[in-house]
Amino acid sequence: MMETKISKAVIRRLPRYYRYLGDLLNNKVERISSNELSDKMKLTASQIRQDLNNFGGFGQQGYGYNVRYLHDEIGKILGLNETHNMIIIGAGNLASAIVRYDKFEQLGFPTIGMFDVNKDLFGTTINGIKVYSIDELDDFVKNNQIDIAALTLPKENAIEVANRLVSLGVKSIWNFTHIDLELNDDDVVIENVHLSDSLMRLSYEIASREKMTD
Amino acid sequence: MMETKISKAVIRRLPRYYRYLGDLLNNKVERISSNELSDKMKLTASQIRQDLNNFGGFGQQGYGYNVRYLHDEIGKILGLNETHNMIIIGAGNLASAIVRYDKFEQLGFPTIGMFDVNKDLFGTTINGIKVYSIDELDDFVKNNQIDIAALTLPKENAIEVANRLVSLGVKSIWNFTHIDLELNDDDVVIENVHLSDSLMRLSYEIASREKMTD
Repeated sequence: MMETKISKAVIRRLPRYYRYLGDLLNNKVERISSNELSDKMKLTASQIRQDLNNFGGFGQQGYGYNVRYLHDEIGKILGLNETHNMIIIGAGNLASAIVRYDKFEQLGFPTIGMFDVNKDLFGTTINGIKVYSIDELDDFVKNNQIDIAALTLPKENAIEVANRLVSLGVKSIWNFTHIDLELNDDDVVIENVHLSDSLMRLSYEIASREKMTD
Repeated sequence: MMETKISKAVIRRLPRYYRYLGDLLNNKVERISSNELSDKMKLTASQIRQDLNNFGGFGQQGYGYNVRYLHDEIGKILGLNETHNMIIIGAGNLASAIVRYDKFEQLGFPTIGMFDVNKDLFGTTINGIKVYSIDELDDFVKNNQIDIAALTLPKENAIEVANRLVSLGVKSIWNFTHIDLELNDDDVVIENVHLSDSLMRLSYEIASREKMTD
């Protein structure tokens, strides 16, 4: 059981640390000071020390951080030392983009099946991954270890399908439908992706710059 | 010129306020108390009052918030009272998903062209939007008002294309390539979308739940 609750802001930054440290590893960098990491991450060195202290530090005075160690420890904190099988509900463009992006599989999130209501897609494959009828979902989930279901279907069906997945024992939902999915089940983890929110933040920045130059 | 700098956390929440208030409008709700809004938003009523005070309040004691007024004011803060023309570089699955999602156009972000290096795509249309050769990019940007360029191309070409767009006068980049894009130009606004970060946050939550039940 975890002793302290880690703030959402820290958790939000962890994947970025992991990506940056992975880049350093690829460039054969073995150690880095918090100042150097600070330059790369656009965070203060003190912020970085605080962030990493949440997880027991990993830094050594006068040496800095061992890149591989820090990378692997953050990976473990993020659960990336385990494979998470994923299915995708809805086999449209977004699902195709997800299944074609090899990085997800490299990170330990292989997609092992896609599901749709469109008969024309049944039995086809995208990047080697088969599209099944949504009617086969129950059997598929019972016969395979499914850790994550990504929802890329129309929002009208999102709650019904999410509840069905949860009743089948799926514990994590990566939600791309255009609603904030909320289920009355504390055991289920939901990550909502709202591309329109991202676009609105961009728009906010554009509007702010325009104001500044008025 | 804005008087105070608004925190990133508040800005991050604004699109959610906008979406929720839009849902309320669709359901013909005319006013809402900060307590009711708090229930919907999963924020404390005090947090909501604080957030909205950043923008001059909008609430009235004993009445609550006028939904349409608050919706429209937040829309203005987000710059949604103006149309932002968008182009997409890379006409693959992710670009198709973006261009097929009508909501972006409804929010004032019409896509007016897509660009690719794949000859087979030149002249084809996706949801009525034409795919051009990347060689036509310069002329297109010179002849049209382009506010936002979405990058959905391989990361190897991202920086080169981003710099080219900036030199052509494009001021905002919605970056889906798998790098944190940084340009040495403070006039340019960049919103990085990292789907793998989102997946890692989900993975973190899964790992945390598992620890709790150990």
